[in-house]
Amino acid sequence: MEKEITVYPPATVANIVCGFDVLGFALDKPRDKMVVRLLPERKVSIINKDDFDLPPEPERNVSGAALLAMLKELPEGIGFEVESTKTILPGSGIGSSAASAAGAVVGANYLLGNRFSDNELVRFAMSGEELASGVRHADNLAPCIYGGVTIIRSTDPLDIIKIQSPLLFVTIIHPQIEVKTSDARQILKKQIHLSQAIQQWGNVAGLVAGFMKGDYDLISRSLVDGIIEPVRTILIPGFDEVKSQSMKAGALGGGISGSGPSIFMFSRTEETAHLVENLGAETYLKMGLPCRTYVSTINQEGVKITRKEVIL
Amino acid sequence: MEKEITVYPPATVANIVCGFDVLGFALDKPRDKMVVRLLPERKVSIINKDDFDLPPEPERNVSGAALLAMLKELPEGIGFEVESTKTILPGSGIGSSAASAAGAVVGANYLLGNRFSDNELVRFAMSGEELASGVRHADNLAPCIYGGVTIIRSTDPLDIIKIQSPLLFVTIIHPQIEVKTSDARQILKKQIHLSQAIQQWGNVAGLVAGFMKGDYDLISRSLVDGIIEPVRTILIPGFDEVKSQSMKAGALGGGISGSGPSIFMFSRTEETAHLVENLGAETYLKMGLPCRTYVSTINQEGVKITRKEVIL
Repeated sequence: MEKEITVYPPATVANIVCGFDVLGFALDKPRDKMVVRLLPERKVSIINKDDFDLPPEPERNVSGAALLAMLKELPEGIGFEVESTKTILPGSGIGSSAASAAGAVVGANYLLGNRFSDNELVRFAMSGEELASGVRHADNLAPCIYGGVTIIRSTDPLDIIKIQSPLLFVTIIHPQIEVKTSDARQILKKQIHLSQAIQQWGNVAGLVAGFMKGDYDLISRSLVDGIIEPVRTILIPGFDEVKSQSMKAGALGGGISGSGPSIFMFSRTEETAHLVENLGAETYLKMGLPCRTYVSTINQEGVKITRKEVIL
Repeated sequence: MEKEITVYPPATVANIVCGFDVLGFALDKPRDKMVVRLLPERKVSIINKDDFDLPPEPERNVSGAALLAMLKELPEGIGFEVESTKTILPGSGIGSSAASAAGAVVGANYLLGNRFSDNELVRFAMSGEELASGVRHADNLAPCIYGGVTIIRSTDPLDIIKIQSPLLFVTIIHPQIEVKTSDARQILKKQIHLSQAIQQWGNVAGLVAGFMKGDYDLISRSLVDGIIEPVRTILIPGFDEVKSQSMKAGALGGGISGSGPSIFMFSRTEETAHLVENLGAETYLKMGLPCRTYVSTINQEGVKITRKEVIL
């Protein structure tokens, strides 16, 4: 049995426009780096090698909480040490806590000879997400662990479906403001019109078919959300401008990543994705808001497991 | 140019469980038979060769209204005669009026050298549906004309997507009671919980993916409707019994066809579909309600166009 492995859990986008709480995907970058080591005793130990001041106590740490959930289903005499270097900014809305939880359990599972299924790993990692946000959600964990575009058909029982998708370039624009997930959830209306819901599930059906057929036009036409986006974007200054500029520049569509503040946009070419990136950066520069941007493809693999060093 | 063609428009199922107003499919049987003839003058003439007492005046007849809508986009000196023999019972909930409208426009279009697209044909046929139910809906027309399983992503603009589906056997159980579409629509709640809507679009995503992957288990798990079915089934005596017996017999799932009264059930084998058929027939026999049943596959072709006689 190997004693140590390095894993690179990717950033992820949850809530793909109309697919609120249901559809997500994994990015190729940014990624965190985690070294996971097997220990000969029932113990979880966390070493943070970055400057985010994340708590090292396993029960207060996202990776730790996920591993503690896994340990409950393992015999005595097994434990883990995690050395974590985060690149995915906490609070960015691109699945930072999910990456910490997913990377830890995927690495640990590899060292155990892959005894747990991906579905079980998501379940363990949900304890990490619960610690981070108070909600046992799998929106970011599912794409982080399965890779590609994922459907969460149901959370109880947990039913995750990975679907095919064509080559897509993704621009992430991250204005560095704070959006609390709890605020983003609180402002949503609890009741919606049936007619709006029908439009939404028509678009969800179109989006799933668009991904699976590799039909870019259909993907673009389906990236419509009349329910969540109009409410939540009031928390993200500049959203409307970034979106309309992106569409003019040729993006297929996009919206809020998770509960924000990051914005994601799909493009068919890398050139368009970079154009969208530049326009987004310019918008926030003008507004005087610091902003990070990334251009990536959809990552089909999920958490990368490797003994070689990867340049992030 | 040919002067006459025989078409066989199929019955269809709209509102596939969670896919209310969005997902439908075509059946192989029952089908209507229609002979469509080209006339050398701007005129629509209807001949009813069955006992349903349908109005022969074109502006009051579903086929006639659809053809009159088409004529508006045709030059002078073209008209149609339709000789219709209906097998799909009006009011059965399996797209009887859609078949009349679709058959007429598909036959007419064939005689014109297929100058209109399927999307345009649906648009013309919607005038027939409007006459029948007061609503310009395409739920049954889309699968009737395109064949297979269809998504209506949007009605304005009309956006229809045909998706792949695996071999499925369909049992139709039609208890002969009257359910008015207007009643069925009126009893629906106008407002729903966001959480219910999210569950529904999770199931819609799962169902579309299930059809496209040919994943029978996923199709089965996704055939859940927590919004429409619990309300509408109060209009269909025996529904709960038929459904629970069908599931026990091995059906994958099913629900109300259109707005009822027909019930449809998917099965993986023809044997199971016939077992479901027998159980359904027995239930209504016990209740003293006359009942018709059909077992069919999903029809991938839509309206059949042929110069040969087809046995219905």
